[in-house]
Amino acid sequence: MNEILSLELVDDKLKILDQTKLPLHEEYILTDDYNRIAIAIERLEVRGAPAIGIAAAYAIAFSMKNKIELEKSFESSYQRLRITRPTAVNLFYALEEMKKIFFENISSKGIFKILLQRARELHNDDKKMCNNIGNNGLDIFKKKSKVLTHCNTGSLATGGEGTALNVIKTAFKVGLIEHVHVDETRPLLQGSRLTAWELSKLGIPYSINTDSTAAVLMNGGKVDLVITGADRIACNGDIANKIGTYNLAVLSNYHKIPFYIAAPSTTIDFDCATGENIKIEMRDKKEFNFFGDQQILPTDINAYCPAFDITPNQLISGIITESKIHQPPFSFKNV
Amino acid sequence: MNEILSLELVDDKLKILDQTKLPLHEEYILTDDYNRIAIAIERLEVRGAPAIGIAAAYAIAFSMKNKIELEKSFESSYQRLRITRPTAVNLFYALEEMKKIFFENISSKGIFKILLQRARELHNDDKKMCNNIGNNGLDIFKKKSKVLTHCNTGSLATGGEGTALNVIKTAFKVGLIEHVHVDETRPLLQGSRLTAWELSKLGIPYSINTDSTAAVLMNGGKVDLVITGADRIACNGDIANKIGTYNLAVLSNYHKIPFYIAAPSTTIDFDCATGENIKIEMRDKKEFNFFGDQQILPTDINAYCPAFDITPNQLISGIITESKIHQPPFSFKNV
Repeated sequence: MNEILSLELVDDKLKILDQTKLPLHEEYILTDDYNRIAIAIERLEVRGAPAIGIAAAYAIAFSMKNKIELEKSFESSYQRLRITRPTAVNLFYALEEMKKIFFENISSKGIFKILLQRARELHNDDKKMCNNIGNNGLDIFKKKSKVLTHCNTGSLATGGEGTALNVIKTAFKVGLIEHVHVDETRPLLQGSRLTAWELSKLGIPYSINTDSTAAVLMNGGKVDLVITGADRIACNGDIANKIGTYNLAVLSNYHKIPFYIAAPSTTIDFDCATGENIKIEMRDKKEFNFFGDQQILPTDINAYCPAFDITPNQLISGIITESKIHQPPFSFKNV
Repeated sequence: MNEILSLELVDDKLKILDQTKLPLHEEYILTDDYNRIAIAIERLEVRGAPAIGIAAAYAIAFSMKNKIELEKSFESSYQRLRITRPTAVNLFYALEEMKKIFFENISSKGIFKILLQRARELHNDDKKMCNNIGNNGLDIFKKKSKVLTHCNTGSLATGGEGTALNVIKTAFKVGLIEHVHVDETRPLLQGSRLTAWELSKLGIPYSINTDSTAAVLMNGGKVDLVITGADRIACNGDIANKIGTYNLAVLSNYHKIPFYIAAPSTTIDFDCATGENIKIEMRDKKEFNFFGDQQILPTDINAYCPAFDITPNQLISGIITESKIHQPPFSFKNV
């Protein structure tokens, strides 16, 4: 298989695969400028919560290279990176971790090397997490299966091999995948642009379908199980994920098809009792108006564009994390 | 309200609203050339099964203007129009009707005027059918309602005010519509491009949503009922309609929301016992690759693109035709 790297440290610079150009062009950004990395996060050149956190950690390290006024330099890059994507929890986790390491080592010589080492560790931790999710997920396959997934949860979304998509990739390696149905995932087409590209690179049989075609696939016996990622998991197992996930969960329920979530345990929000506590972020209607540079609709249209939806726990067959498959009824506690 | 005319006879020429330019540009084609009308049908400049049938009837009439070799001329235009859209039943109904009138009047002087008169009658019949469907549909509203619809079934799809969308328009006139949720309807965006444009022109409150957002709207109490059109109705009430309709029917069932179909009785196929007998037409994957002229995905992607899906009768609350609302259990017989 060809390894896909959304982020790679090369000669003390970060090599970023520009996801806005995919799948038509495979272009990279090579930089050690923290502000360029901040811009890459803002432009979605790098996306996916785990990948964003790792990129930000490297950016903080780079910002301390050959600096004299350490605190001032740190504060500049830390604040700059904080405002890139306000809703990605992993970003803030990574920034706080780097802040802690910075103040613990502020009087050390070689602070850049220390911070770079911590960024590499965070990157490696993410790789391990992905591998463990992939391996733990194997238990959901009772036979060589046809699976359906939504959005992108693979190498492009993480520092490693992915979450839900890595369950599929790991299963493929051991002969448990017959076919992957990829929801195109409107409005931003992460499925048809990114997931299909990853599967194609890896030689895994796939086909793209419009999101509302999932029902027909299920009714026609073409889907044995559904697996998606999660952006946030409440203590009762309700999950927030990309818009369209709840739709799939209802369809799976109707067609008696298992519906699984795969996500790192850092996605569990112990301050959040149920899905009702999760605020739904709304997107700009321009995501309907334009495809790339091409305008499709007038700018004065009315549109309802939630970024994600809530799937209630009773529609979820299991939640796969790096530690195990959590079975319903779910009850997550911070121990 | 502003009247929207997809087709209008002006000075013995057909004025066609070019639907490929909507909603950004409102342009018309004015022609009495049967071949130009055939091209308009092929290019989807005019679309919607009833509208296609009417356009073809006018085209046949135009083809007989000032002709000497009547049979040869008729055969040319008749065969040309037959190959424009092989699956639209109304096209063949209109062509056969015009053929019958042609051979009944082949020895008459003024065959052009006779055929043009029959085309106008077919157009008028369609307008009446639309009005009757709109009026019959009022009975499904128990209160001022929030409705959700899919694809385009309005003035742009018919020679009159539409089918499912005319139920909504008629209900709006008498104060029964609070809001219309419009599925964008991937891949060709008939909802966000055409239905939203019609509603906007008429001042009816609407918002566009991605197809997979319908589930969230339903769960949030934002949908009181769903109404869509149908491309074909089997004797047992199973219906074929634009891909995504079955998805909506399952979601409606789960959320206990009434799900209605509105279509002319000519849509009932008495030779078709159940939905299993309806062949699913597959579309070209280029509908995924391109938006207008802009390429989004590589041309070698794998995609599964059925043009329509089958909704089983048990998920349908009622079928509104120009004669009445048919209630389940459905049993259509040719009497």
